[in-house]
Amino acid sequence: MRAPGGEVVITGGLGFIGSHLVDAYLATGHRVRIIDSNAGAVIDGENYDADPRCAVIRERIEDYLTAGGDFTGVDRVIHAASYVGPASILSRAGRLGHDIIGSTAPVIEACMNAGAPLCMFSSAEVYGRSGVLDEKDDIVVPTQYNTRIEYAVAKTLAEAMVSNSRRHGLRGIVIRPFNVAGARQSRAGGFVMPTFVQQALAGRPITVFAGGDQVRAFIAAGDLTGFLTGYMDLALQGDEVIINVGNPGNAVTIMDLAERVKSLLASPSPIVRVDGRSVHGPHYAEAESFHKIPALRTATDLGWRPRIPLDELILTTADYYRAREDRRAVNAPL
Amino acid sequence: MRAPGGEVVITGGLGFIGSHLVDAYLATGHRVRIIDSNAGAVIDGENYDADPRCAVIRERIEDYLTAGGDFTGVDRVIHAASYVGPASILSRAGRLGHDIIGSTAPVIEACMNAGAPLCMFSSAEVYGRSGVLDEKDDIVVPTQYNTRIEYAVAKTLAEAMVSNSRRHGLRGIVIRPFNVAGARQSRAGGFVMPTFVQQALAGRPITVFAGGDQVRAFIAAGDLTGFLTGYMDLALQGDEVIINVGNPGNAVTIMDLAERVKSLLASPSPIVRVDGRSVHGPHYAEAESFHKIPALRTATDLGWRPRIPLDELILTTADYYRAREDRRAVNAPL
Repeated sequence: MRAPGGEVVITGGLGFIGSHLVDAYLATGHRVRIIDSNAGAVIDGENYDADPRCAVIRERIEDYLTAGGDFTGVDRVIHAASYVGPASILSRAGRLGHDIIGSTAPVIEACMNAGAPLCMFSSAEVYGRSGVLDEKDDIVVPTQYNTRIEYAVAKTLAEAMVSNSRRHGLRGIVIRPFNVAGARQSRAGGFVMPTFVQQALAGRPITVFAGGDQVRAFIAAGDLTGFLTGYMDLALQGDEVIINVGNPGNAVTIMDLAERVKSLLASPSPIVRVDGRSVHGPHYAEAESFHKIPALRTATDLGWRPRIPLDELILTTADYYRAREDRRAVNAPL
Repeated sequence: MRAPGGEVVITGGLGFIGSHLVDAYLATGHRVRIIDSNAGAVIDGENYDADPRCAVIRERIEDYLTAGGDFTGVDRVIHAASYVGPASILSRAGRLGHDIIGSTAPVIEACMNAGAPLCMFSSAEVYGRSGVLDEKDDIVVPTQYNTRIEYAVAKTLAEAMVSNSRRHGLRGIVIRPFNVAGARQSRAGGFVMPTFVQQALAGRPITVFAGGDQVRAFIAAGDLTGFLTGYMDLALQGDEVIINVGNPGNAVTIMDLAERVKSLLASPSPIVRVDGRSVHGPHYAEAESFHKIPALRTATDLGWRPRIPLDELILTTADYYRAREDRRAVNAPL
């Protein structure tokens, strides 16, 4: 018996964004097929194993499809699997491009074969420059390549592949998320919100990289998933393939974020400026966007609005890590 | 018994650039292993089959490597295999990214495993804008994606993968060729030089796209191969990964090229302005670079100079197609 909403495939469903998507689709009455290689998993998935509405397949999506897996009868596919995080990707230098394209290409093909709509997760990293970034803007790629740029270019290529595959009948959209945060995000990837929050909770120095004047606009995972569960069908009917999802109302400098985290959590932690390379190694690179603010156009034209304010995001993240360890981050710097 | 120069692997060695590379390395005393899927072959390769210095493997490079092929003992690898040409790539829309990355990634891996130096062919298409284009310049990617942009982004990603793989010990460089021309280049790909020359020889209208004011600087295949045979070892010792190879001295508007071809070949052909889409279909796109001129810096710093002038290029191409058909172009518009 099918649930009223049908079955949603979520690749990377044990990761940070992926697991929030699983929860959101379960909450809207769908069954969920999670396919996750464990490369970026932030949870062990045992709760999903025990849930009759979920199937958890612990395998790389490309291996799953090569071995005969397919999307026949599936309501939609959300391709969220990816290496992520400026620290996590470093070990994949030179191979990351193929990691991303080699998993995305078979997903596109399988969606076309099954007639299943696709939402692929790209990244706001693609823009490659500072500013209020609009989906219509050109992308800039510096040619002093590093792993972070390899990541951005791979996501750009995956976007082009989804977009051009519409010519062959794919129904597909691409999300460019801007600094998603919330429970389960691991500091292991090098993400700033769980790093600051865990440092504040532990009374360890809060480490601000790159001076602290850079601006980020954080969106709650719940606002992001709300776009998918509420507006994906509308988006598939439109002409826009690429959709920024972010919350410009939460824009903040990284130094101000450090101070807000310290204050909200009543932490004794000192705030210190450090070079990210001293923490994550000599190949660590900052984002090309010093100021990274989403222009919202396509998503808000559809009626979606982000709602969750920054303070709530900080407190939610803190609640999560007060109650448990960061399981991916056992060997990561704090 | 090994030839003094050792064995060179050339992927795409039956293609236009590839076959010129094969001839150049044979002429400098090397043996050559050609691996070619026939996707872009401009010759049947029978002469190479009959040459004891050559081995011709008619297979996709990724299949060759998956089946156990490797580069042990190889002197160098030139990865020239690719879908090419603004018309040829159209049928690969949405899949082209994976075509390019899925063949390049295993070549990089096999070169690292064997300790073989790699030269990968990228494209001047990567720049995505007009001007005198320097290797240090940022790349621009318009996000109104089409197949041509998918091609450019895939080449950009392949560049980043080669560049970042140097961290894992790869000895590798990347060539960005600017409008290579000469014998064997097929009009089937949508390339302008063999199209104009064959139109002029046949007395058919010479079809100028996009108005004719766009500027291209054509380099002879022999000048390009001269860089590889003469300067690749020097380039591998340097810090620059990306190397423009072109001939700014041959810069010409496309209308002037049409007139020069008509005049040099004493052709009765009229010169007509047409929309490329009326010839190659609605998905055909012009290059993002209206003016596309190479800045030569890395290559000339090494001592290399292009020498062959435009007229000689036109005449060489005409000599070739006076003597034979364009075998790839039997179904292509003339």
